[in-house]
Amino acid sequence: MRIDIITVVPDILKSPFEASILKRAIDKGLVEIHLHNLRDYVTDNYKQVDDYQFGGGAGMVMMIEPIDKCITALKAEREYDEIIYMTPDGHTLKQGMANELSLKENLIILCGHYKGVDQRVREHFITREISIGDYVLSGGELGAAVLCDAVIRLLPGVLGNETSALTDSFQDNLLAPPIYTRPSEYKGWKVPEILTSGNFQKIEEWREDQAYERTKKLRPDLLSEEEK
Amino acid sequence: MRIDIITVVPDILKSPFEASILKRAIDKGLVEIHLHNLRDYVTDNYKQVDDYQFGGGAGMVMMIEPIDKCITALKAEREYDEIIYMTPDGHTLKQGMANELSLKENLIILCGHYKGVDQRVREHFITREISIGDYVLSGGELGAAVLCDAVIRLLPGVLGNETSALTDSFQDNLLAPPIYTRPSEYKGWKVPEILTSGNFQKIEEWREDQAYERTKKLRPDLLSEEEK
Repeated sequence: MRIDIITVVPDILKSPFEASILKRAIDKGLVEIHLHNLRDYVTDNYKQVDDYQFGGGAGMVMMIEPIDKCITALKAEREYDEIIYMTPDGHTLKQGMANELSLKENLIILCGHYKGVDQRVREHFITREISIGDYVLSGGELGAAVLCDAVIRLLPGVLGNETSALTDSFQDNLLAPPIYTRPSEYKGWKVPEILTSGNFQKIEEWREDQAYERTKKLRPDLLSEEEK
Repeated sequence: MRIDIITVVPDILKSPFEASILKRAIDKGLVEIHLHNLRDYVTDNYKQVDDYQFGGGAGMVMMIEPIDKCITALKAEREYDEIIYMTPDGHTLKQGMANELSLKENLIILCGHYKGVDQRVREHFITREISIGDYVLSGGELGAAVLCDAVIRLLPGVLGNETSALTDSFQDNLLAPPIYTRPSEYKGWKVPEILTSGNFQKIEEWREDQAYERTKKLRPDLLSEEEK
């Protein structure tokens, strides 16, 4: 998989890809991440990438021309499955969407910054608009990092243990059951006895019960009608 | 405002706070961010912060003792309004929650990593569990960065133009209207005439209509019943 990220502040995105699981995925050659500074696609001397809104109002708007140039240059090199724009009014990212995107080959992610991009960019270049949630961030960069993380950790070979991702929250529409590690007692707080019983069938049943009970209590919206 | 972030991979979080709006907020003294490496609170020589799950299963679990030590040391220094744990099964972050948290003084954010933290941490130390969305990330670090960004940009003095945040998506339960900047025509694609009319009352009406229509089309769930 190859992901090209277009941004006016590539610096924000440096460290998330230089540590932990994303770094390992890159080092293993399982994914390539390319950061593109939008200012490199500006022809004037001021490196201007944004301008005031037509009609007045607070906040700057990212201009269409540098974005067009950058996307066009990338598309001349290879085919892209999706050209994604990170925006709070896009489709909300869910685990299923991450699963689906993890099967793609080449993705472009355009990060909005300031007030967002000129609407004509969205109409003529973007194939998919994604939001990571119902809140506003100072730019799309952290959203892009979140999207990359959610997708890349699903690529075969990225997680140390292949089965780990399958027991995550949301993969079966249930929250994960509670987990415990050593010591079995800390300041009088004990691990549930069942977990140290060695009876793996009973442990599995307990975990399923816990996952269901926690979901019913905390996120009943995840359970379909018949399961409630 | 002061935010203490506890993590096993502080490196992930370096660049998001060293660029753009978050950096400016820190430079202006409007917020202090302190990263704490959980490994500094481990007493054994291996700097072990995680261990296998009781009951078996894939994925490592973060141990209670180093987290206890770190939180206890911080709480000895000052009072905290909230001790937050970033987890996909927490309360989903929304703009209203970001608004509310922006009024707090001192926050601790604990980032889960690997499979998550020992459940006893959540029961005995955490006052609030927050998820940034229904998807799983390789750790809570990006979630913590997202939460910080959403909250910090709301602090008075952080955004260049105070009114900018008020016209964002979600602040009035409506998506933002489309925005445009120069040139007024690009490759034959024109800006809506109304925006260059100079009639600011009509522009305001157009924007309100657009915000409402976009919300109705893309996110009808945001509109309350009577508005539909």
